[in-house]
Amino acid sequence: MTQGALGDRFALYDLFAAYGALIDAAEFDAWLDLFAARCTYHIVPRENYERGLPAGLVFCDTRAVLEDRIGALLEANKYNIHTDRHLIGLPRLVGDDAGEALVEAPFVVYQSDQEGETRLFATGLYRDRIVSEGGTLKFRDKLVLLDTFAVPSLLSTPL
Amino acid sequence: MTQGALGDRFALYDLFAAYGALIDAAEFDAWLDLFAARCTYHIVPRENYERGLPAGLVFCDTRAVLEDRIGALLEANKYNIHTDRHLIGLPRLVGDDAGEALVEAPFVVYQSDQEGETRLFATGLYRDRIVSEGGTLKFRDKLVLLDTFAVPSLLSTPL
Amino acid sequence: MTQGALGDRFALYDLFAAYGALIDAAEFDAWLDLFAARCTYHIVPRENYERGLPAGLVFCDTRAVLEDRIGALLEANKYNIHTDRHLIGLPRLVGDDAGEALVEAPFVVYQSDQEGETRLFATGLYRDRIVSEGGTLKFRDKLVLLDTFAVPSLLSTPL
Repeated sequence: MTQGALGDRFALYDLFAAYGALIDAAEFDAWLDLFAARCTYHIVPRENYERGLPAGLVFCDTRAVLEDRIGALLEANKYNIHTDRHLIGLPRLVGDDAGEALVEAPFVVYQSDQEGETRLFATGLYRDRIVSEGGTLKFRDKLVLLDTFAVPSLLSTPL
Repeated sequence: MTQGALGDRFALYDLFAAYGALIDAAEFDAWLDLFAARCTYHIVPRENYERGLPAGLVFCDTRAVLEDRIGALLEANKYNIHTDRHLIGLPRLVGDDAGEALVEAPFVVYQSDQEGETRLFATGLYRDRIVSEGGTLKFRDKLVLLDTFAVPSLLSTPL
Repeated sequence: MTQGALGDRFALYDLFAAYGALIDAAEFDAWLDLFAARCTYHIVPRENYERGLPAGLVFCDTRAVLEDRIGALLEANKYNIHTDRHLIGLPRLVGDDAGEALVEAPFVVYQSDQEGETRLFATGLYRDRIVSEGGTLKFRDKLVLLDTFAVPSLLSTPL
């Protein structure tokens, strides 16, 4: 991603807006399209990450594993019916080299159950490597640093 | 709204920022100015909307009805003193035709009471038709899709 | 700040994104760099502010006082270990004169404890005077209007 490419910051903003919106709308095929052909997706407690501990809650090192994982989540979701709502803060460019942008954005996720009761589910920070693929920004590496690791039913949707 | 008009995305962002800020500041006349001369304002539980059920919590099909409704809310508010705080995610352009843009943005609303205690009030998604009127972006149709429908004192302010 | 300078709205967005991110990452030296050489930092309950009452929760009228305060907070933090997560809404330009921009943005802060349990901590509104110093946007006057004034351990980090 050249400096010029990220000159189109709205495309970056749209990528993050779509990321949250597509999970919340349960459009997981469109959500997967936001990732590059070669991609990773990790959910790691913030504390582990800061201490350099590898242990993650979700560990998808290839796109095939991520696709499998999403399929499994959708299956599990049939028994844990809820809806998500992501609020994602303004993305912040923290690095840019070798055609990859390192971008961070804070997030909060709420869940609502079938009675329409809404609860805070989790907060954290996205720390993502973003590339331009065919002229479109995509997530190469999505790292979800989780503040909240005592979450119930953690794996029912991606974060 | 032409593609060029929405090329000024900051005007779109400002419209949503003003929308939340003016409710939170209880500046409802200025808030009404964000709507087009011909406008609608609906609050519908997300589940009803997805199932195609018409039942809404608030149903203002003309500007006059919306103005009446706001007047009634302000009266009711004298007996339910609180302040609101809206956080609205990045607006996302999901359609654009016939001079109208279809824009979605997630939101969360907190309420604080007179003791300064703050609670999560509701989350949801705005799904709005936006037009340019006299060179200014305005809400033609504001649809508030509500995740939270077990909200106490629902009608004390607009969402 | 000329109209042209604020024409670069992304720089304004980045300033607010960095503000929250640097507190959350506990990078307080970098956070202090977001303030102008001459600056103020106040935390005031919203209600007091609207009534014209001067009583604030935090009152830093010079940069030296702010730096001292941050040092004291870091010391206090050793005994109240937690992490913060700021979500800041889209900044909104509400005034611009004499080279200073008046900008507002809503915020919510969550805190997570060592067990990874996350709680809503506070909501409010930033109401800031922003200047360009050496070509970089900086906070001249940061006013944190707090909806939540019954917060526990209020002073453990800046808001």
